[in-house]
Amino acid sequence: MKKLINDPLAVADELVAGLAVAYNGEARLVGRRSLVKTHIPAGKVALLVGGGSGHEPIYHGLVGRNLADGAACGDIFAAPPPNIVLEATEAVHRDAGVLYLYGNYAGDVMNFDLASELADDDGIKVKTVLIADDVCSAPVAEKHQRRGIAGLVPIVKLVGAASQSAKSLEELAAFAEKACLQTRSVGVSMAPGSIPATGKPTFDIADDLIGLGMGIHGEPGVGEIPMTTADALTDQMLELIFADYEKDADVAALAAGDEVILLVNSLGATTMMELLIALRRAKTILDGRGIKTYDVMVGAFVTCQEMSGISFSLTRLDAELKKAWDLPCQSVCYSKMEGAQGA
Amino acid sequence: MKKLINDPLAVADELVAGLAVAYNGEARLVGRRSLVKTHIPAGKVALLVGGGSGHEPIYHGLVGRNLADGAACGDIFAAPPPNIVLEATEAVHRDAGVLYLYGNYAGDVMNFDLASELADDDGIKVKTVLIADDVCSAPVAEKHQRRGIAGLVPIVKLVGAASQSAKSLEELAAFAEKACLQTRSVGVSMAPGSIPATGKPTFDIADDLIGLGMGIHGEPGVGEIPMTTADALTDQMLELIFADYEKDADVAALAAGDEVILLVNSLGATTMMELLIALRRAKTILDGRGIKTYDVMVGAFVTCQEMSGISFSLTRLDAELKKAWDLPCQSVCYSKMEGAQGA
Repeated sequence: MKKLINDPLAVADELVAGLAVAYNGEARLVGRRSLVKTHIPAGKVALLVGGGSGHEPIYHGLVGRNLADGAACGDIFAAPPPNIVLEATEAVHRDAGVLYLYGNYAGDVMNFDLASELADDDGIKVKTVLIADDVCSAPVAEKHQRRGIAGLVPIVKLVGAASQSAKSLEELAAFAEKACLQTRSVGVSMAPGSIPATGKPTFDIADDLIGLGMGIHGEPGVGEIPMTTADALTDQMLELIFADYEKDADVAALAAGDEVILLVNSLGATTMMELLIALRRAKTILDGRGIKTYDVMVGAFVTCQEMSGISFSLTRLDAELKKAWDLPCQSVCYSKMEGAQGA
Repeated sequence: MKKLINDPLAVADELVAGLAVAYNGEARLVGRRSLVKTHIPAGKVALLVGGGSGHEPIYHGLVGRNLADGAACGDIFAAPPPNIVLEATEAVHRDAGVLYLYGNYAGDVMNFDLASELADDDGIKVKTVLIADDVCSAPVAEKHQRRGIAGLVPIVKLVGAASQSAKSLEELAAFAEKACLQTRSVGVSMAPGSIPATGKPTFDIADDLIGLGMGIHGEPGVGEIPMTTADALTDQMLELIFADYEKDADVAALAAGDEVILLVNSLGATTMMELLIALRRAKTILDGRGIKTYDVMVGAFVTCQEMSGISFSLTRLDAELKKAWDLPCQSVCYSKMEGAQGA
């Protein structure tokens, strides 16, 4: 791999320094590897995200206006250590508690939980909501085991908006639980990314196969399927999402009249051309079911280096979620004006 | 290449259909392959962009709120034919003329010029401003021969904002000329993209070389250099940009106190991690010269499929350009809230 880096062991620190430059004063580097908004109002319920580096523009690209207040950044593909989560927690805290909102991976859960205990010792109240939107990573009966993938972007956008006016940590955590419950994703992979320090691929897959439900680090999904067309694959992936809402007793099935945010995400090297072709098909399927596309996100938001792959995420909106969606936001990862595109 | 497509010969039509979905009512498909804003005020000076497909999210991703009014979309890597440019021209025209603003490529110039003659026959006044920001594609003395590369994104953002209040086509064209004059880019490539219809690479380059100044379709630049570090390459690329402002009698050299938009663009497969590492170095260089970074753009805006490469663009702002920059905008390619990040 020809990667534009300097010291292969310093990529995480250097990319976080680059993010601070990209924020251009809106957020700043705190401690070793945390990004924190420069201005957080006194008394605000704080929103902290975080996770491993190498998946940019998430997670640490989601700090910004009407988004997260801070991010604890790990090394490449590694959870942030507890001391980094703690330094970020202390930096965002404004005496109204801190919500931890991050993808459900064992290392992250262990380290964020440890940090929350340390924060508690400091008198900082923390609540945690785990993002577990990947329907292929565990069956409905074990949905709390699921991994967090691209659905985290609309979830953080919504919760970041809600955090601007949340009256308590409990209120914000309940809002985040609702956003998570209504968000479901399915991803596939066609080719691996590479590990920056070694140049080695993150996994192997045959030239004529697609990893259905494969995770963003190459974790196994529901199986391998033959390479197929954009339309056939889109049909199959959306069917898995629809089936999951149907099987889950905690939510209603997606039905005619429902309004959703539709996200089509590239894992890295998959082009906007491919995303747009798949998006076109997804819209036809949603229209056929009478589901209204309130807004659309399309791009490379959750990546794994130059991995090739695509994911679809749906977030069903109610009036409260829609109001949060409509707020403008700005960050390195995602920005929008007020309202929905075209609304 | 494992590409998620359907019919290889229908990719341009299908991706443009996908773009219309992404616009979700903000813009619509007109005729064969034009994207046009749904609401364009009567009497508005219209802004039309366009070019070949396959480079998404440009050009046709730049239609939107406070951006372009329409885009004429060509086939993959091919200029839009005159009839498509004409259909787009007629669709955006609101009796105050149409500004054509696009990258300087021979095929595009021929077809847009033909369309402008046909538009003139229809009584539609057209003016053209060519984007030619690639300083490696011709020396200063022949700068009007230069290609348009990633600098087109800040240019279209600025001109789109100015078009909201421009009093005449001439005023908007003069503004666009100024934005173009103040924008300079240098790009490199490390690996080719592929042609969607054949899977063949767009060019060849050795494993240990970088194409300095190579164009987005693999056009020759100023030569090949050995693979190097992110920092050394950033230094060399920015030096070429600074030297170009110095050599050009039409502009002042970049000097301490100047304010710029800094864009770091990925040609496709180059990761956000790499862009951020390079951005971090670029900021140090600008700081060292006393040049103020008014705003930063970082991401894959101008691509050539899964091509690996990076470009830097600088746009020097004056008070008028800064005012246009500060306007919020929204599109598939680029969105922002009002003001500059962190300002």
